[in-house]
Formats: sequence, C-alpha cells, structure tokens
Amino acid sequence: MKKYVIGIDFGTLSGRALLVDASDGRAVAESVYEYPHGVMDERLPDGTPLAPRSALQHPADYIDVLRNTVPDILASSGVDKADVAAMAIDFTTCTMLPLDKEGMPLCFGEKYASEPNAYVKLWKHHASQPQADRINKVAAERGEKWHAIYGGKVSSEWMIPKILQILEESPEIYEDTYRFSEAADWLSLLLTGNETHAPGFAGFKALWNAEDGYPSKEFFRALHPRMENIVGTKLSENIPSVDSIAGYLSESGAALLGLEAGIPVALPVLDAQAALPALGIIGDGEMMMILGTSGVYIINDKNKVPAEGICGYVKDGIYKGYYTYEAGQASLGDGYDWFVRNFVPEEYTAEARKRGISIHKLLRQKAQGLKVGESGIMVLDWFNGNRSVLADADLSGMILGLTLRTKPEDIYRAIIEASAFGARIIIEAYEKNGVEVKTICASGGIALKDEMLMQIFADVTGRQLKVAGAPQAAALGSAVRAAVAGGIYGSMEEAIKVMSVPAARIYTPIPENVSAYEKLYEEYKTLHDYFGRGGNDVMKRLGK
Amino acid sequence: MKKYVIGIDFGTLSGRALLVDASDGRAVAESVYEYPHGVMDERLPDGTPLAPRSALQHPADYIDVLRNTVPDILASSGVDKADVAAMAIDFTTCTMLPLDKEGMPLCFGEKYASEPNAYVKLWKHHASQPQADRINKVAAERGEKWHAIYGGKVSSEWMIPKILQILEESPEIYEDTYRFSEAADWLSLLLTGNETHAPGFAGFKALWNAEDGYPSKEFFRALHPRMENIVGTKLSENIPSVDSIAGYLSESGAALLGLEAGIPVALPVLDAQAALPALGIIGDGEMMMILGTSGVYIINDKNKVPAEGICGYVKDGIYKGYYTYEAGQASLGDGYDWFVRNFVPEEYTAEARKRGISIHKLLRQKAQGLKVGESGIMVLDWFNGNRSVLADADLSGMILGLTLRTKPEDIYRAIIEASAFGARIIIEAYEKNGVEVKTICASGGIALKDEMLMQIFADVTGRQLKVAGAPQAAALGSAVRAAVAGGIYGSMEEAIKVMSVPAARIYTPIPENVSAYEKLYEEYKTLHDYFGRGGNDVMKRLGK
Repeated sequence: MKKYVIGIDFGTLSGRALLVDASDGRAVAESVYEYPHGVMDERLPDGTPLAPRSALQHPADYIDVLRNTVPDILASSGVDKADVAAMAIDFTTCTMLPLDKEGMPLCFGEKYASEPNAYVKLWKHHASQPQADRINKVAAERGEKWHAIYGGKVSSEWMIPKILQILEESPEIYEDTYRFSEAADWLSLLLTGNETHAPGFAGFKALWNAEDGYPSKEFFRALHPRMENIVGTKLSENIPSVDSIAGYLSESGAALLGLEAGIPVALPVLDAQAALPALGIIGDGEMMMILGTSGVYIINDKNKVPAEGICGYVKDGIYKGYYTYEAGQASLGDGYDWFVRNFVPEEYTAEARKRGISIHKLLRQKAQGLKVGESGIMVLDWFNGNRSVLADADLSGMILGLTLRTKPEDIYRAIIEASAFGARIIIEAYEKNGVEVKTICASGGIALKDEMLMQIFADVTGRQLKVAGAPQAAALGSAVRAAVAGGIYGSMEEAIKVMSVPAARIYTPIPENVSAYEKLYEEYKTLHDYFGRGGNDVMKRLGK
Repeated sequence: MKKYVIGIDFGTLSGRALLVDASDGRAVAESVYEYPHGVMDERLPDGTPLAPRSALQHPADYIDVLRNTVPDILASSGVDKADVAAMAIDFTTCTMLPLDKEGMPLCFGEKYASEPNAYVKLWKHHASQPQADRINKVAAERGEKWHAIYGGKVSSEWMIPKILQILEESPEIYEDTYRFSEAADWLSLLLTGNETHAPGFAGFKALWNAEDGYPSKEFFRALHPRMENIVGTKLSENIPSVDSIAGYLSESGAALLGLEAGIPVALPVLDAQAALPALGIIGDGEMMMILGTSGVYIINDKNKVPAEGICGYVKDGIYKGYYTYEAGQASLGDGYDWFVRNFVPEEYTAEARKRGISIHKLLRQKAQGLKVGESGIMVLDWFNGNRSVLADADLSGMILGLTLRTKPEDIYRAIIEASAFGARIIIEAYEKNGVEVKTICASGGIALKDEMLMQIFADVTGRQLKVAGAPQAAALGSAVRAAVAGGIYGSMEEAIKVMSVPAARIYTPIPENVSAYEKLYEEYKTLHDYFGRGGNDVMKRLGK
C-alpha cells in the first residue's frame, strides 16, 4: 500500500515540500526553494517601477518550487514515486493573479510583461487600500448582509479590492482576464486540469459564503458597472466542499513533479490554517497562533457568532462541521526584522558577530533582563497597517516613551510587547463574540526560538502557551490532508490522531508579570483606540 | 591703555576662554578645557550610585577650567597680562551647589564626599521633578503672584526644586549649607571675595523679581517648615543691578588665573543669554535661538507682558531697561546625538567612515532629498522632557508614522522637524503674549554646520533665519560685557556697535515648503496638546 504523502507550503519568500510517512506522521524528507524573484515591491524584472505599497510576485517562481522540491524529496529520501499516495498544497492568501482562457498568467505573455497589474498580487500588496475603502463604503450603504461576516471591514489584502484596482487602473487587463484566481487554485488547475476556487480562499478572501454565495450582481454593479457580471465569469463559482479534492494529478502535472499521474490532489488551504491538523487542533477553545513575518490567530468553533473585529469566518473552512475564524497582525517578524536591519548600531552588530549569535538573539539577551514596564516604552506595531481588529492598512506604527536613555533593546522588547498586546486585543474580540479562547498553541520559527517573546505572550494574554512540536507545521498539516485525500484515513480526526505532533514546550503565565502587564495593556488600549478608531486620524493623513 | 578683555563660557561638558581685542571685537586666542568628571549621571567618582535622572558635576572641574584656559590664552597670544582690562563669565543654569561658610563646596570635605546631594546639580538634573510638582501645586493653591511670571510652571531644572530635593533627601546637608549658590556666583566669590546672586540667575532660576524679591516666608513655610527663613540665610539677597560688577579680581583669584589683581569681574550671566551682545541683538523683535545640546529662545522687549507658556522673564536681566524673555527645548543636539549613537545601522556607520564624514552628515545627505512630509513620520522630541511651553520633565518622546519602509534618515529628519515645530510653538507663545518675533538669529555649532536644519527651521517658522557670525558667541558676548565692566566703553550699546559680528548667512523660507509644513504643524499641535496637556497622560504614567 502507498504510504507516503506530500505537503507543499508556499510562503512569502519560498516554497517548502515535505515527504511524510502517513503511518506515523514522520517527515522523511524536506526541500525548500526560494522564489528567484522574491517580493517585487520597487520594480518589475524589466525595470518597470511599481507604485508605492505594491507587493508583486512572479508566478513562474511557484512552478520552479514544484519542479525542484518534489523531485528533490524523492531523491534525498529514496522513496519510490509509486509509494506516494496523494499530495496537498497550502498557500499565502489572498495571493492572486489574472489568467487567460488557457489558464496562463497574463504576465507570461509579451503583451503584459511590463504591466504590474498582470502579475501576482501578493497577500501583502496594499496598494488596493482606496478600493477596499470604497468596497466598505458601498457595502455599508447598501447594508450588505455578508459585510457583517468580516466585522464590517474588507481588507485591502483581499481578492475583490485587488480585482477592482486592476479594473480601475488597467481596464484592458480586466477585459483580457478570463479568471481572477488565487495562486493556490491556479496550481490546482496546473496540476489537475480542474478549475476550482477552494472554499477557504473563497470564504476568507473573496466575500463568498456557503449560505448566500458571492455578493449580489447589484452590489458589484454599484461598485463598478463593468463588475456586474463578474461572478461565474471572471470569478469561478466552482467551489467544492472542503472534504472533496481538487482533482487527480494530470500527465503534465506528473511530469512536472516527477510523480505518478492519477494520485489525488487535495483542495488547497490557506497557509495560515494548514498547520492546524499537524498540531492536533480541531475545536474546543484552542487557538492557533502563527508567528511568522505576520501573525495569524485561528480558532474553530461549532457555532456561528457575530464576528465584529474578527477578520472573517468560514463554515467548513478547514474541517467539516466547524466554523473557522481568523484574525491577524500585519507585521510581526517583519517588524522585528525591520528594526534589526535599520536601527541597531554598529557596536551591537559587532558584538553579535564576535559572539557568533544573531542580532535578534543579542537584543533578546539584553532585553530579557528588563522588568515589565522598566523601559517606559510603548509601541503600536502597525508598521504594515493593522489587520485585526481595526482592518486598516493605512495605520502606521508608533513608539512612545522615548528618552535620551532609551536603548535599542528597550524598543525591541516593546515591539514584541506590542505584538502581544495586539494578540490580546484579538483574543478579547473572539471572546466578546462568544468564541472562548482557553489555550493557545503557537507555531512558526519565532515560537521555537524566542523564549522571551513566548513568555511575554503568556504573561500579556494570561494564558498557557504551547509551542507547536512540528517545525514545519503548515507543510505537515498539508500532508495530513493529503493522507485523507489519498484514502489512507477515513476522516481528518482519524489522520490527526496518528500524524499530529505533541507540544514541544509549554509556557505558563508568571502572576507578577501578568498584573504588571495589565496596567500597560490599559495604556495600550487607550492609544490603540485613539489612533485606530478615529480619535486622531493623523496616521492616515501622514500616510498620504 | 588696556585693550584686551576675557570672556569665559562654562558649558555642559567644557569651559572655553576667549581673549578678545576690545577695539574691534577680534578674538586673538581661545582655549577649551573639558571637565575631567564630565556629567555624572550614573555614579559619583567613588562609585556611589546615583538615582535615576540625576545629572551632577564636580566643582573642581570649573577651577580646572580657570587655571588652565586663562594662562593658555595669554601664552598662545603673547598678550601681556597687564593689558587685560576686565573679564566676565557665563554659565549653564540652574547649575547649583551647596557651600559652607568659607565658600567651599560641601562635596570637597570628607564628610560629604560620597553624598550625591553635596555635589553640583547640573541644569539638566531632573530628579527634582516631584519637588517641582509640589512647588507648582503650593504656588497655585496660594495664588502666588510670582507664579505667573513663569507661566504658572516652575521647572525641575530650577533652584528651589533642587534645594527642596536636598532638604527632603539629605536634611543634614541642608543644615550644613551656608549658601545654596549658582556655580557662576560661586566662581565670582572665588575670584573676587564678594558674594552675589547675579540678577539673571536670581530672576530666571530662583523665583526672584526686581519688584517683589523672592517668594514670601509664608510660601516657603508652606513648602517645608524648615525653609521658612531661607531667604537672606541660605539664599543670598545680595542681587546687584545688571550694570554693576561682581567685584575686582582678588590676589588669590589673580594667582589662579595668571592675571593682574584688581581688574573688574563682570556679573555672570546665563550662558544662553551671553551671546546676545556678540550678535548685536538688543530688542526690536529679534529672537535669538541657541542650537546646542538643548535649544534656547531668547528675546528682549521693553514691555512687561503676561508670560504664559514662556519659561520666564527678568527685568534688566541682561540689558538695563529691557525685559529678557526666555524659553527652551530640553533636547535638541542631545536628541540628534542619541539617535545617531543608538539607532543607526552598521551599514551607515561604515559608509560614513569610508567617505570620511560624520554620521550626522551622512544622515543629512540622505534626508535632504526628502520632500516635506514624504516620509510620513512625525516626532514629539521630548526625549528629555518638555521645557517650553509645557514645562514638564516627565513627558517623553514619540515617533509616529513608522512603516516597514521607514529608514533612519526619515526619523532623523523628523526629529529635526520636531525641533522646528517646537520652536514655532514657542514663537507663537511669545507673540500671543504680545512679544513680536520678526526675525531669528541662530547661534551654536549646529546653526553653522547644518544647512538642512536651518532651512527646515526657516520653512517651519516662516521667518528669515540669520546665522550668528561668531562661532563662540557666548564667550564673545561675555567679552563684550567685560569691555563695559572694564570701562573701555560707556554702555553696552556702544560696545556692541564695535564688537559684535554680522550674520554669517541668511536663510529665507521657501513658500512651497512653508505651506506643506503648515499642515504638518497642525498635526504636530494636535499631538502636542493630546500628550502634553492632559488629553492622555500616558507618558507620565509610563515614566513611572
């Protein structure tokens, strides 16, 4: 019997394939491939300059990931391709692109090679903020029912604002587009020949929901006359149930990957949610927190609740029978990196080099001796806007409490504390809406490496914090889904029981710190609301 | 006829003596001596740790300045000591210390060598903030008339809060103190044998005014029972008129300096105001702006006006017949240095080194290409509290508008812009109170070196900005006063006509920038008032 499965996780800068033994969840080989074009935020490959706040990718990079990593894991493990039962992918989102009738990205053709709007718009492309604002305005005016699902706030990172930007800026590209597709769904098409819009993506990023479908013709017409008939034409209505599959690997797909044709390819899921099965999280008040370049907070609940302040929810988004709720922080590791790259002096860099440690580690060592509140610094970490609960990409970061005695480690720690305060805002929004958050399971590289951060998160949220045992939880979670798609297990619950991994470590809140942070959190909330809820819109004005 | 005069300027880190030819104002020799103990803000020389926000100095350092620099300027110029007609000093303030009956600093004795409160409290010693708060509270409750002179706000940097701190923390030192003296007045005593409290210091820093003297016994009793009789005992009432002198150089003073005994020693003035005569500024709406580690804004006016928002005013403070008004920014060059020392990455440091320029210059070069408002960054530069117009040492700095694209030069420029916005707040406070500000004359090293800063100040204030021609304006201004004290000229006006120096350069506002800054200034004012006037006292709470 075929006992291996493959999970492939497409991140912001690279793709990672994992070959997993489905009988015990053990990863037998791993391969990572960095996108040759990375994130294009200043110019296209041919030098065409990009508008501010753009973040594009080249779709050829994803194909490169597939044809490099899959043969690589087979070769390095010695596993026979005939023993691979199924595969599944997960992807950043909404990472979308315009396709022609043949399913080819428009940017592949000569006609649009120099047109930014023909390329992949990465999840963190924020140039569609004016369009998101318009969508929210029109939806509010019309009292659109679906608007409440997203807490009344559609983000600039989602599908419809990005399409509207293309239409407004490049109407010809809009006309020439046969389908606007998630990158993940485009890969399903490439591998299986079937065109689908996976339900997680449709629900979380394209304003679709199982009960009512997409927004109405009238809404789209109110947005833009030429968008009236977008549903079913440029936007696929083929949205399968989460427990079905995208299709079977085609001959051409098999040739690309070096696998056997005909194996099941699971429906893709959002990279942020892909880890859940790997961590054994189904429902019952366990929140998953993914700490990477950005932060994502996911929880499943059997009940449907009003979702003000939550990024969105999708019924059967990842598990049949559960509503999946998601909230997020637009800048997390990205913010720490930005600080380290730009605002740490030579003296520190030299010390880190001499001691053979990273600058992050050096700053952590210097900062971990600080008592709670000792530095007097408070940060709003909206360096990439605020996703939850304010859903406003036009907000920006703030550092307060600076004195001539402030050191880089004071600010570094305060940025981490801001992430934790932001996490608590999200948790409280969940709980206010009736979704209880009992414990938190953290995944992502930061969760494994940064003990100071983990303790701060435990202290600020006042909750036990488990560290996910699987270092590559998203790819492993995709492998779990592949094991069900491949028929090795009859249900997700069954597969999870065998293949998921236990917590690597548990952080418990320190009561003294909890009460000290309580006061700081009150200060944080006041500033959060003043700058984030209209008390003073200076950030938005300065952003212009 | 004796034609040379000496001006000595005691700054925060060093003292500088200038030997000047009184017949034309030409400096013939200069000598700088750095204080061996510098600013003590962490520990005393014997290792005794200091409380947070302390800034102490060692009085022996000032004597070292005298006995090193004066012989040095005579030697290097070849001028005969017999040709020196008079001398004058200026000093940072309120830089104060407790003296015994013989005029010896208490810290010189063995008994108090390890007692922080026996040392010089430098102007920027901010540990007396609780005492300043109490003084303001008591004065407000009692409706003290003098309180209005200082805009209702006594600063922690002044004399009475510093004395009250000594009394509360070290009652024995308070008892053993014969006089609390400005360092400047102590040097007058040392050089002439006469004990005085120069009127500028008494007026600006010790709550004295010509009409009513010091605050009343009742006020001091309300502050602390043991302070009731401080005036005339521990606080000198010998406050001569500004046009008289401190005394004549004694034998011991002459021996220390290598000068002839018997020459007149002018009354000392505040270092910030010492430059006025050198720059030819008397009255007529010309404001002097001193850009150094901190910023000082001085203007003379024949009229007495209510002074809300102004640090203080003194009648005949520097010129007979004029009220001298002063306001200040607690962090200016200090703030730029702090940023450069702590928050500029290795890559920049290496580039500056390679190109053989300072990091300041590198940042200016990178920042000067930015359009007004381009970076979207806004700063409140209260890194050392706010002196004018809020007079609150407990405020702290803020940076807003940060994004993952923010670079060090963006923040560096925004800090400079914050200085300029703060200057405009001060100018508007002057004008609101009826003191017109027509033009601005800037002195200090920054004014000569930093063209970007000067243009920003001109654009933000919408006023012509002259750069003082005299690089060492304070010492030269003291020399001008010495020339009058020595009888070479019959009046300050006469001496100024001959000895002052013309503007080195004039900056004119650029209309396009003026209107762009107008909008940013509105944003600045909103934040200034929100964080500075009680909208949100988070800075104060975090500071604790």
